[in-house]
Amino acid sequence: MDSLTEMECVACRPGAPAATDDEVERWQQEIPDWKLVTVRDIPRLRRVFRFSNFARALAFTNIVGELAEEEGHHPRITTEWGKVTVTIWTHAIKNLHRNDFILAAKIDAGLAASNLTE
Amino acid sequence: MDSLTEMECVACRPGAPAATDDEVERWQQEIPDWKLVTVRDIPRLRRVFRFSNFARALAFTNIVGELAEEEGHHPRITTEWGKVTVTIWTHAIKNLHRNDFILAAKIDAGLAASNLTE
Repeated sequence: MDSLTEMECVACRPGAPAATDDEVERWQQEIPDWKLVTVRDIPRLRRVFRFSNFARALAFTNIVGELAEEEGHHPRITTEWGKVTVTIWTHAIKNLHRNDFILAAKIDAGLAASNLTE
Repeated sequence: MDSLTEMECVACRPGAPAATDDEVERWQQEIPDWKLVTVRDIPRLRRVFRFSNFARALAFTNIVGELAEEEGHHPRITTEWGKVTVTIWTHAIKNLHRNDFILAAKIDAGLAASNLTE
């Protein structure tokens, strides 16, 4: 089975299938640092990333932004001093889609490939 | 009287004076697009900026980030597709300080100097 980082986000329209409970459970194992949160009845993936200053947080925001553009799937990114909070969900279906897990996994890989937490 | 954009943020420690009601009223006139919001009992300045895509929103986030580093005063910046929400307050005093209005005015000037809303 391909890992999430080997997959690519696909165009997602209203009516596309939401992730099933089984899929959520399976995919979450590949992104253990992401929490499942529900805000305004919409399930979302969220991870808080910590950095030693503002510049590193902003640099990470740009890494996330670049991945988002590559995948054509755009999360909410909150940048603060020493902290970036990324929240991912699929607007078109107001739910979680496989795309969300793929983007989360690629963001984790993007962090690992950077030297921002050294 | 100097306009806010001609001032610079100063180091702000616990015990520094919060903006008075008169100051808030006066300074708000220089930044009419910012709303005064209170979240968790802390007054904050907030403005939502709209853009035509994600790349422009992210470019604006970087402009705000650069201004924040120059002033040594760091807001919360939430970047989404076509939208950046900036929230400013002074952590050290859990209140609004003149610094917050100065940063807001400089962010407005940064937007005006960019071509991101064309």
